[in-house]
Amino acid sequence: MKQLQVALGSRSYPIYIGENLFKDNLFEQHIKSKQVVIVTNTTIEPLYLALVMQQLEAYQVETIVLPDGENYKTLAYVETIFTFLLEKKFSRNATLCALGGGVIGDMGGFAAACYQRGIAFIQIPTTLLAQVDSSVGGKTGVNHILGKNMIGAFHQPQAVIIDTQVLASLDDRQLAAGIAEVIKYGLIRDIEFFIWLENNIEKLLLRDSAALAFAIERSCINKAEIVSQDEMETGIRAILNFGHTFGHAIETGMGYGKYLHGEAIAIGMCQAALLSQQLGYLTAADVLRIKNIFEKTGLCVTAPKDMSAQTYVELMSVDKKNINGDIRVICLHAIGTACLPMAVETSLLMQVLNSYNAD
Amino acid sequence: MKQLQVALGSRSYPIYIGENLFKDNLFEQHIKSKQVVIVTNTTIEPLYLALVMQQLEAYQVETIVLPDGENYKTLAYVETIFTFLLEKKFSRNATLCALGGGVIGDMGGFAAACYQRGIAFIQIPTTLLAQVDSSVGGKTGVNHILGKNMIGAFHQPQAVIIDTQVLASLDDRQLAAGIAEVIKYGLIRDIEFFIWLENNIEKLLLRDSAALAFAIERSCINKAEIVSQDEMETGIRAILNFGHTFGHAIETGMGYGKYLHGEAIAIGMCQAALLSQQLGYLTAADVLRIKNIFEKTGLCVTAPKDMSAQTYVELMSVDKKNINGDIRVICLHAIGTACLPMAVETSLLMQVLNSYNAD
Repeated sequence: MKQLQVALGSRSYPIYIGENLFKDNLFEQHIKSKQVVIVTNTTIEPLYLALVMQQLEAYQVETIVLPDGENYKTLAYVETIFTFLLEKKFSRNATLCALGGGVIGDMGGFAAACYQRGIAFIQIPTTLLAQVDSSVGGKTGVNHILGKNMIGAFHQPQAVIIDTQVLASLDDRQLAAGIAEVIKYGLIRDIEFFIWLENNIEKLLLRDSAALAFAIERSCINKAEIVSQDEMETGIRAILNFGHTFGHAIETGMGYGKYLHGEAIAIGMCQAALLSQQLGYLTAADVLRIKNIFEKTGLCVTAPKDMSAQTYVELMSVDKKNINGDIRVICLHAIGTACLPMAVETSLLMQVLNSYNAD
Repeated sequence: MKQLQVALGSRSYPIYIGENLFKDNLFEQHIKSKQVVIVTNTTIEPLYLALVMQQLEAYQVETIVLPDGENYKTLAYVETIFTFLLEKKFSRNATLCALGGGVIGDMGGFAAACYQRGIAFIQIPTTLLAQVDSSVGGKTGVNHILGKNMIGAFHQPQAVIIDTQVLASLDDRQLAAGIAEVIKYGLIRDIEFFIWLENNIEKLLLRDSAALAFAIERSCINKAEIVSQDEMETGIRAILNFGHTFGHAIETGMGYGKYLHGEAIAIGMCQAALLSQQLGYLTAADVLRIKNIFEKTGLCVTAPKDMSAQTYVELMSVDKKNINGDIRVICLHAIGTACLPMAVETSLLMQVLNSYNAD
């Protein structure tokens, strides 16, 4: 088992990465009182709930099982968690375990952030995407029909428990979507890792356990370093949003759940790469190299046909990075180096989007 | 104008107290960008909105007017604020001004806490109760049908602007309810202030401006000291909940909005005083003295007739101070000295409630 640390003063916490972690006794030290609630979904429940429950025999454990999918990441479903906790008379010192992918982690974390103004929670991510990205860093929240992740809170977990064994049950589509976020770390700040990924993507797709463990660890190291520097995203943390301004527009525009988050941001990263080329940072060869790695991963880099540049711009105008209505995007200075959000003219965005679509 | 400071490191902020503060230019220094949203209600809008708007002519100001009353302090109404802000394309650097009483401050503050994971906000309290209590300290949130203030966040404002002139428009019932929270400070930690209140309650009821200004300032000093010591209520801050365990049960049990918050906690403080007597801390004379000051304020100290001790206990079992299901209550060691939350047996609570009701 590897152990990393997210260094945030009194809010610091460990990330455990390894095989069969549900069998190690990692939970106890991070749980404050008898009351434990597990938030999971209908897909994960039959696979891993019993395993986690075995670790929690000493506690009063309650379980709430939500439907599976991004379209359920709403305030209304978070309210069902609140109601459940109140009916069970859960106190402020209870602990919530989010057992699932990014949707469960985001919703469970947000419920933990707001229930009685904040209770402890543990992230137990069961998708690659959640393991390498959303479970680390304390971003929690839900979608609004007008914008992705628009309602939420920064609320750091007590611990992140990443059992790499669970990836065995992940379908190929989910695996590829997770690799998109892994590639992102290479693109924004870790050229060495990017080159490693170019050479090892097949191993990841074949679920080679050593390769997966390395990719998860390297991703979490990158994430933890950025989060430790800028917990509340007042500066550098924004580069983690590379590809997300475009990607969120695709997710919102096409209807939550149609594209997996990783699928949408893979396209978004290619669009942001093209914009970076237009701004004179990247070469055409760089952009092609970026498209290639996503295609090798089995991710479609073609933009949705039925979404106009106008629709993108409309949706991108609602984005957390924007200031006073200006659309701000993360670009790459080079492969391996992202720049901070920059305001981009609508006309340039439209041009990039139209030319991307025409490709 | 008086200026106090809530000392919380990087989250420190001023409380301004004085007459006609809306005319001083206090807003500008606390606003980050062009985008300003004012959250207010139908009662306050015709009285003070134009006055505040005059101060904000240099900004893009949008206003959302909510219905007035505790029964509207729900997640659903907070969601209307999110939708409004998204429709107006408000960014993460926008500023929300909560112009109203405690309900508007709590809801507006909670919306600010969660919109795009947190935007800046300014408290402009227009009731005595909000001025002396809820606007200071960063507690925000909404009610759940199963419990008062059960969903929320700690989110500190940029500033609290207390214009004592607005109290002129407050009805007598609201004024008395506000005085209940003022008296609370005397009871829990400021015996000198309690004695001053015993001697000056008539002046407050006659809206003597010097007396009101003194009471507000002294209350805010007490509140700011406690909050600075214990922002997240891991210890001493809980004493601010004196009377609230009983009072919240009354509010929830009778239906939100039937009792004003101050009315409910006035009864709750008398019930907590009787419990303190049963535990051997207060004398019968102390309890009478406490009841007397509330009665002089014009507050009813008779418990609602149609609420059984069983109902109280059921509702009190859902309280943020509870641990592992034990009901915990703040008692007084003496008038002017509260003790930290203590677990109280259900049988003793029932006995105190029944004997209080029989009085």
